[in-house]
Amino acid sequence: MKKWWFPAVLIISFIFSAIGHYAGFPYTLEFIISAVSVIFVAGFLGKATESVAHHAGQRLGGFLNATFGNAAELIIGILLVKEGHFEMVKASITGSIIGNLLLVLGLSVLAGGIKYKIQNYNISLAGLNGSLMILAIIALFVPAIFLHTKALDPADTNLLSLIVSGVLIAAYLLWLVFSMITHKDYLADVSDGGPADPVHEEAAWSKGRSILYLVIATVMVAFVSEWLVHTLDPMTERFGLSEIFVGAFVVAIVGNAAEHSAAIMLAMKNKIGAAVEIAVGSSLQIALFVAPVLVFISHLFASGPMDIVFTVIELAAIGVAVFIAKSITQDGSTNWYEGLLLLAVYIILGVSFYLV
Amino acid sequence: MKKWWFPAVLIISFIFSAIGHYAGFPYTLEFIISAVSVIFVAGFLGKATESVAHHAGQRLGGFLNATFGNAAELIIGILLVKEGHFEMVKASITGSIIGNLLLVLGLSVLAGGIKYKIQNYNISLAGLNGSLMILAIIALFVPAIFLHTKALDPADTNLLSLIVSGVLIAAYLLWLVFSMITHKDYLADVSDGGPADPVHEEAAWSKGRSILYLVIATVMVAFVSEWLVHTLDPMTERFGLSEIFVGAFVVAIVGNAAEHSAAIMLAMKNKIGAAVEIAVGSSLQIALFVAPVLVFISHLFASGPMDIVFTVIELAAIGVAVFIAKSITQDGSTNWYEGLLLLAVYIILGVSFYLV
Amino acid sequence: MKKWWFPAVLIISFIFSAIGHYAGFPYTLEFIISAVSVIFVAGFLGKATESVAHHAGQRLGGFLNATFGNAAELIIGILLVKEGHFEMVKASITGSIIGNLLLVLGLSVLAGGIKYKIQNYNISLAGLNGSLMILAIIALFVPAIFLHTKALDPADTNLLSLIVSGVLIAAYLLWLVFSMITHKDYLADVSDGGPADPVHEEAAWSKGRSILYLVIATVMVAFVSEWLVHTLDPMTERFGLSEIFVGAFVVAIVGNAAEHSAAIMLAMKNKIGAAVEIAVGSSLQIALFVAPVLVFISHLFASGPMDIVFTVIELAAIGVAVFIAKSITQDGSTNWYEGLLLLAVYIILGVSFYLV
Repeated sequence: MKKWWFPAVLIISFIFSAIGHYAGFPYTLEFIISAVSVIFVAGFLGKATESVAHHAGQRLGGFLNATFGNAAELIIGILLVKEGHFEMVKASITGSIIGNLLLVLGLSVLAGGIKYKIQNYNISLAGLNGSLMILAIIALFVPAIFLHTKALDPADTNLLSLIVSGVLIAAYLLWLVFSMITHKDYLADVSDGGPADPVHEEAAWSKGRSILYLVIATVMVAFVSEWLVHTLDPMTERFGLSEIFVGAFVVAIVGNAAEHSAAIMLAMKNKIGAAVEIAVGSSLQIALFVAPVLVFISHLFASGPMDIVFTVIELAAIGVAVFIAKSITQDGSTNWYEGLLLLAVYIILGVSFYLV
Repeated sequence: MKKWWFPAVLIISFIFSAIGHYAGFPYTLEFIISAVSVIFVAGFLGKATESVAHHAGQRLGGFLNATFGNAAELIIGILLVKEGHFEMVKASITGSIIGNLLLVLGLSVLAGGIKYKIQNYNISLAGLNGSLMILAIIALFVPAIFLHTKALDPADTNLLSLIVSGVLIAAYLLWLVFSMITHKDYLADVSDGGPADPVHEEAAWSKGRSILYLVIATVMVAFVSEWLVHTLDPMTERFGLSEIFVGAFVVAIVGNAAEHSAAIMLAMKNKIGAAVEIAVGSSLQIALFVAPVLVFISHLFASGPMDIVFTVIELAAIGVAVFIAKSITQDGSTNWYEGLLLLAVYIILGVSFYLV
Repeated sequence: MKKWWFPAVLIISFIFSAIGHYAGFPYTLEFIISAVSVIFVAGFLGKATESVAHHAGQRLGGFLNATFGNAAELIIGILLVKEGHFEMVKASITGSIIGNLLLVLGLSVLAGGIKYKIQNYNISLAGLNGSLMILAIIALFVPAIFLHTKALDPADTNLLSLIVSGVLIAAYLLWLVFSMITHKDYLADVSDGGPADPVHEEAAWSKGRSILYLVIATVMVAFVSEWLVHTLDPMTERFGLSEIFVGAFVVAIVGNAAEHSAAIMLAMKNKIGAAVEIAVGSSLQIALFVAPVLVFISHLFASGPMDIVFTVIELAAIGVAVFIAKSITQDGSTNWYEGLLLLAVYIILGVSFYLV
């Protein structure tokens, strides 16, 4: 992200994907160009968010980071909801969660573990993150189990979805109050300042420029995301892929690429605690904030309200990802083999999603 | 419980609910009066049990407390079984377990956490309690999974229910042997004497009076429970509630109100370990003792034997409650946010039970 | 195993079961004789494997032990696959896993716990074993959940089975690299040399004799296993047992008897860590090596390929066994009551399998 070539690639890929969209390139080419563009624009948006947060002071800054840290996923999600692609939205939420917990965390632990025999980190935050992750699973499982057991009329299903979404958003906002206000010191000791503000390590942009960049980046994300979403239908059809596979693996990997590279870099600098926090924190943000916000937003579109009921295989995928990630992170130390275990589960899920 | 007005309210509410029952008050009013009466009579029974246990010496006293600590739930359960309300019995067992693990524990942790930043307690007992809780879940899950997969004839279902119930009761009795005889010291260090005998803190009744009160309280509970159960059918019908919702939330909350207030009081005195023990211990008692005893007792009534097969949504509710309670208690410290997480899960389950 | 009478009983039981097979004894008698014979021959094979491993040097020896430690189960499995008894194979895999985690571990912890109040062991290895066990569960669950949700054509089912099996075998081989090469010291500290090489404790055979015995034992296992498998069909029919019950309890207990006695002996010598390692390690070997190898081997037989899709009740049994074994072993200390809990779950599963 901090390389001299970054702005050049950012702008060039954006322009090319704009041309591809309006000139009507073949869909495969348009898909590839806009996917590359989303990756770079999302990285730019992430950097701008951090820079604004840096100037906003710790409290408001932390709030901004926590709320807009997955802005790219949120924008892609809104576009998919608007188009009525509810299956793909849920699949991409599933894919973001398992991608962060298995692929990002797995590659980080593996990369760090090849360089360092054992990597240690403090586990208090891991414990709390684990409990939050369990809340997220429960909130997604309970409506699905109840509804698979006994059919509800759509109005009740939507009411249940809204209430569960409201509980999740409230839990997420109170988590910010807890971690940034009432128990800030308690958790700060834990992460020893490492991951909280990555901008510190490098020169941040000035305040005015940060805000300008944030606005520009948000607009750019909205555009390239729309172009990308536009190619998904023909792509899915052409390669005979299921909507759920494209959502869970293609969209999710593209949308989270920036987090992926950041976490792996940190792990290789022996900051495995920060890498774990990015991976786990990002999946929490998706489950507790992005997903329920999309449920609320879906009520604004003509495509009709989206419920929070995930399919059995999506829930199974999220469940196993949380289960093994929790088992591996809870002892406060990692090694290369644990990274491989996470990747093994990711491969098994990927093949299963592809074949089903 | 220890307030001067307690005997007055106890007697007045008992008399009013008797009048309500025999004079034929409107059901809604009768329900409210008898519910209030059950709460106070159950509190009186709990206090009398503790007082008798205090005089019986530590070993026998501990056994009495452990066996009759949920006498009110047991009596209500027997009355429901006698009337053939098997669905409501299982729902109220479910509700008692999740009520203790989510509502009681959640309110205690929240109330304690608002007053104290972090509350700590020893985790050895928590670990063992966790394993017992897992046995309880397994014992309830296995018959259900096997039976949902392959239909069994009723005789085999009842045989399986009796064997599983026998295993649970044996496990519970051996737990008393373990915790009160062979490994008493090992666990006593853990709870530092706090929760074992709450009567110590206040003047106990004399031996004779304790026994007299225990007999009176048991008779009173039996009466008011019968009056309460008598109002459930018309109430359920009138408000369009399901038997499962009334059992899991209304009956369970009324029956456990005494434990609720005791646990919250202890948490606010910074005795969070004792509060955790009440909440977890009470749910264990319900799952490992009250539920299987009701299965055995059901064979004595003409309403026919009750099996131990719970519905999918009851098992899901118990499963998620144990899962998050275990995650939150296993690190030996609590804070206000963890209390909120427990309450969030309780709300999600409550809304789901209400809507289904 | 090390008793003077062992060779005599070994040879006599082998000869008798040969006579029984070829002379056509009544099936019940033939079954009993060949089951006894399998138990002793498997013990002999285990000892010969260890002795060869002892001479092969630590690295190759460890590999031999890890790969052929469950050779008897593998041979029985191959014979069952050849005969097309896929249900029974999967049931016996299920039975081996739950038998090791519940029966062997339960009896060891109980026997050790009666003699010693608390038995302690280092938990780092337990943590890693736990994560491996979770990988095994996930690998067995994911295909089943996906396939129960959406029917796949047989070719895709077999492809998925092969890929999952490949991932499991790769994970197992890399585990050997991890535990014997890259992180040998890290884990060696943990097990303080105890369990790694049980042959050290007694005089091993000479190198040449060890190899000779290994060949003889392997041939003997193949023969007696074939004779045993040959009696299963008529036995199953005669006593009205299901294939799944015979596989999960009869075949699995016979095939694992040697591990059972070894683990219990170690626990009674206060080497509970070594006993835990045998029980957990053996179930891992079954899940991560024997089961997937059988899937691959099944493609060589005319009886057609076997998939890796287990039934719901098999998965439930494996899941609950791992769940409670993990909960009990993760705190690094055991007592008699925890042994009883494991046995209680084994009894519940046994009764359920018998009745269904």
